[in-house]
Amino acid sequence: MTFPDFVSVPALSGERFRVIYHLTGSEADARAQAQDITIEQSVEFPAELVPSGDIRDHIFGQVEDFHEIANGLYEVTISYANETAGTDLVQFLNVAFGNISIKAGIRLIRFDLSASKLAEFRGPRFGRLGLRDIVGVQDRPLMCSALKPMGLSNVELARMSYDFALGGLDLIKDDHGLANQSFTPFKERVELCSAAVARANAETGLNCIYFASVTTRVDRVLEYAHFAKSVGAGGLLICPGLSGFDVMRWLADDDDLALPIMSHPSFYGSYVINADSGFAHGALYGQLQRLAGADLSVYPNFGGRFSFSIDECKQIVAATETPMGDVKPIFPAPGGGITMESMPRSQAVYGQEVAYLVGGGLHRHSKNLTDNVRYFLDLLRPQ
Amino acid sequence: MTFPDFVSVPALSGERFRVIYHLTGSEADARAQAQDITIEQSVEFPAELVPSGDIRDHIFGQVEDFHEIANGLYEVTISYANETAGTDLVQFLNVAFGNISIKAGIRLIRFDLSASKLAEFRGPRFGRLGLRDIVGVQDRPLMCSALKPMGLSNVELARMSYDFALGGLDLIKDDHGLANQSFTPFKERVELCSAAVARANAETGLNCIYFASVTTRVDRVLEYAHFAKSVGAGGLLICPGLSGFDVMRWLADDDDLALPIMSHPSFYGSYVINADSGFAHGALYGQLQRLAGADLSVYPNFGGRFSFSIDECKQIVAATETPMGDVKPIFPAPGGGITMESMPRSQAVYGQEVAYLVGGGLHRHSKNLTDNVRYFLDLLRPQ
Repeated sequence: MTFPDFVSVPALSGERFRVIYHLTGSEADARAQAQDITIEQSVEFPAELVPSGDIRDHIFGQVEDFHEIANGLYEVTISYANETAGTDLVQFLNVAFGNISIKAGIRLIRFDLSASKLAEFRGPRFGRLGLRDIVGVQDRPLMCSALKPMGLSNVELARMSYDFALGGLDLIKDDHGLANQSFTPFKERVELCSAAVARANAETGLNCIYFASVTTRVDRVLEYAHFAKSVGAGGLLICPGLSGFDVMRWLADDDDLALPIMSHPSFYGSYVINADSGFAHGALYGQLQRLAGADLSVYPNFGGRFSFSIDECKQIVAATETPMGDVKPIFPAPGGGITMESMPRSQAVYGQEVAYLVGGGLHRHSKNLTDNVRYFLDLLRPQ
Repeated sequence: MTFPDFVSVPALSGERFRVIYHLTGSEADARAQAQDITIEQSVEFPAELVPSGDIRDHIFGQVEDFHEIANGLYEVTISYANETAGTDLVQFLNVAFGNISIKAGIRLIRFDLSASKLAEFRGPRFGRLGLRDIVGVQDRPLMCSALKPMGLSNVELARMSYDFALGGLDLIKDDHGLANQSFTPFKERVELCSAAVARANAETGLNCIYFASVTTRVDRVLEYAHFAKSVGAGGLLICPGLSGFDVMRWLADDDDLALPIMSHPSFYGSYVINADSGFAHGALYGQLQRLAGADLSVYPNFGGRFSFSIDECKQIVAATETPMGDVKPIFPAPGGGITMESMPRSQAVYGQEVAYLVGGGLHRHSKNLTDNVRYFLDLLRPQ
């Protein structure tokens, strides 16, 4: 068979991005593992069969740094040619953690992206500053709650929205378990809850935002999101672990939507809960959320029914605000077991730049949800 | 605020689906964990605040079975109301493994879906029988290889496709690292490789299929897939861990595409490599792939550079063919370090119903790829 003339391949830019991993094992094993990553995450091909030239010199990953950080634990920095990751989030993640996700003893700790790579990501549309401007709250943490339990009718959920917003809650989200079920059809729910929040806002003069859950089949996500906007929802809740991170990015980048995005951690906990594999907390709940366009990143708070430590939560906070070119800082949104009693301990860790997600704790205080919100908010106001 | 009249909620059907988990810990802890799952994966709300009625009786998960299977290891079967999972794959996964993915000591072992739940999934369009009919091979394992290393020009990749297909290879896939990069633009690559395979097929009289990698931003996946079909690609390669499982389902369900789907395990290894969390191998690489429409499920073979055991690979095979209503059996596609030398050992495990993915091993044998394919195929033919 004759082939077309050689199609010339554009020269590589020479620009590279870096990914920092922790490797577990003996030093010899870790050094071998580091070399292995440079191959596995690029050519995935026997290195000895690759002749000298561009592929070997540029397409192969390169170990930029390797050092011990504890007994049996090594930190390695590997760089990859910008071009191997294409220009989208999906292929970027493929290069950063594709096949090696299946290998034990490798944990992705941090992304260190050059300006040229960061420029490919729009990131969050609003970020911390933008979201504060929308809700009009500058001097305290934000407070959010969820509409639940699953099984309530849409009218009951709308009443709850109204009660919450009337109390001055900043953010209301559908529980992440609310999707489009027979007992809570999506469009009816979003219409009723958006109207309820708008009515409460008119009464309070505040700007509570309702985040509609757009957990649905991929071919309906955009329709759901635009419907939500059309009936007045002020934000979107999405579970990138279920939908795919690029579905969240797609919503964030949609200029006709232009709604704040709240990211929920459903389904991808397996990436963080084992200390020597997957992603570090900051990489997953901080940096990756920002690259994928979230304005708020929900994660389990320390001291609740999940097992994150204070230190892990601090790592998340740091990663939500660490400089990343034009990619904005976002709100850490700890949830899961936050109560009035635990609030002082949380405030000591988080300070002002946080959005608390209070669920059961808000319902437990008394039967009057509006009063309960006011009580909680008093705890957050500058004394 | 006045609310609309109560919108009546349709009664629940009473039909439930089951998910089997393994729990690690003491019996008391495991029993508490099982109860916790029934709440966490449904209402995610303090149980004591939910009054008696439909939510408590039907929306809560229910422990159907609990028994010890080893010291400190318990198997629990939990049922959920069909309606809680809506009617799509995304919400189904949310109920089966959403928040509990973030809790240690819980591993999803198996789905046990009633006919009414299975009816919501079309599953693989072709499955084993359909794929065998397309390639015209009934009496031996299928053989597949990948176009690589990343960094070759599209013309070089097309030459490789031609050489492979001329040797009689059944399936050729883009390496999962090939996306839309400057050195291998997607449309040019797929056009050249499809033409090369078609030309070889015309010469051999065989029906080799080329699977084009559609790893790209979600808003371009459908365009890429339809382009691939329009220029003669016979299948699609997708990484559901990167793109989202429902993106694969979307492609599989597209009647205008109607192409076989090969699923690659990039990025979601973190779900299986820790024995007491995530998913069992069979659930992830077998059952879930079928629910999401894959016709072939790629995973790391035992004995290669990944760490899967023979037993784990057998579990995958079993899950690719276990009865699941009208959801067809699919091909297990083990890859990673398969060589001519290791083939007899693999054949003893897999028998006929397998598609071997041979990469480096095929390049290593000699410089003549066409001869190498013929040599490998001779190993697979009935003696």
